[in-house]
Amino acid sequence: MRATNRRAVVLLSGGLDSATVLAEARSHDLECYALTLRYGQRHELELDAARAVADDLGVKEHLVMDLDLRRIGGSALTADLDVPRGEKRPGGGTAAAIPVTYVPARNTIFLSIALGWAEVLGTGDIYIGVNAVDYSGYPDCRPEFIDAFEAMASLATRESVEGRIRVQIHTPLIGMSKAEIIARGRRLGVDYGLTRTCYDPEGDGRACGQCEACRLRRKGFEEAGLQDPIEYAKG
Amino acid sequence: MRATNRRAVVLLSGGLDSATVLAEARSHDLECYALTLRYGQRHELELDAARAVADDLGVKEHLVMDLDLRRIGGSALTADLDVPRGEKRPGGGTAAAIPVTYVPARNTIFLSIALGWAEVLGTGDIYIGVNAVDYSGYPDCRPEFIDAFEAMASLATRESVEGRIRVQIHTPLIGMSKAEIIARGRRLGVDYGLTRTCYDPEGDGRACGQCEACRLRRKGFEEAGLQDPIEYAKG
Repeated sequence: MRATNRRAVVLLSGGLDSATVLAEARSHDLECYALTLRYGQRHELELDAARAVADDLGVKEHLVMDLDLRRIGGSALTADLDVPRGEKRPGGGTAAAIPVTYVPARNTIFLSIALGWAEVLGTGDIYIGVNAVDYSGYPDCRPEFIDAFEAMASLATRESVEGRIRVQIHTPLIGMSKAEIIARGRRLGVDYGLTRTCYDPEGDGRACGQCEACRLRRKGFEEAGLQDPIEYAKG
Repeated sequence: MRATNRRAVVLLSGGLDSATVLAEARSHDLECYALTLRYGQRHELELDAARAVADDLGVKEHLVMDLDLRRIGGSALTADLDVPRGEKRPGGGTAAAIPVTYVPARNTIFLSIALGWAEVLGTGDIYIGVNAVDYSGYPDCRPEFIDAFEAMASLATRESVEGRIRVQIHTPLIGMSKAEIIARGRRLGVDYGLTRTCYDPEGDGRACGQCEACRLRRKGFEEAGLQDPIEYAKG
């Protein structure tokens, strides 16, 4: 039998949050297996960022899998809908309703694939950068969803049902503000210049500066009193 | 808003069970959206069977999606492991342990993708042909897994969290013997000559007749007192 407590699967999108989570898992001295899904994001830039982050922080393996969620549609991130820019929401930085950038069942699908890979690797430790504070209101970022997924997963696989591994979905960022995430990542050595956050980058690759994701990121750096190393098209 | 109660997503593999489930859903006058995953099965024959069954029973749409689970490994169905033939297991037709044909987290992954598509279609009704009687001992075919998936799913998607749809995972075969499934499918008009069950077909496409899946199928037809319309390489 392989040792089961030194490996972890880390979902890595190339964004700020998942880079921080990877650094967190690495700081616990885990051998990390990064999983990135090419699901039909409109921007290859995200995948380049995921590769750069995996390389920079050091992973045992980085697996990029294809699953074209454009086939099922339903999201501005994978379909030809407009991504909203600069609209004000009640309450400031966080969303009042689930926005069009929501991708149906995305975290459920990604965690399920991570679960399969983790089982093959002989581990039940899965890390995901969901966040329920400065986030976009997605239902599959909430603690109650994560708990339910963990309960389901423990009944789903051979290794967990037969008691050889315990499935645990680790969400180290779930209760942090964006500013706290950034401060934590900096201490762990994350190079945020490698990460991509923008939903709707310019033709030259620069972040738009105005979509929901850009605004949350910029506000986070501001509140953390840190300089964001990436360049924005609009100030 | 679209009506939410006349559509269903049906997971369709091309095998006997999922064909029966599609016929069952059709018998409830549901508009069926069949979902087949090309996950790296060793045999394209399964996909041809899924297409033939979808066509024969009548679906609104048949979506074949690619997700190459060979990338994560761990199963004789997707890797270069031998599929066992003809071994006797204690207790006859059912397995005493989870066999090498188990694919890590397969039903979790397939149901998750179905969940995403169902949300886009405005329905929470998902049909899957799992069976916990004459089955191969897979953990993700048991009622407790299905219940946990349904609980998780109801917290996972926008439409369910906001109360517009209710996610229900329908498993009409879960308590039936293989003979009962076959008898039921015959009454519903399933042409079992179109379905594929064998894990390890011959070069000429005929079912081997001896793998776990073939033996369960043959025993089912025998007990149902019906003729299996497909031809086997070995009697």
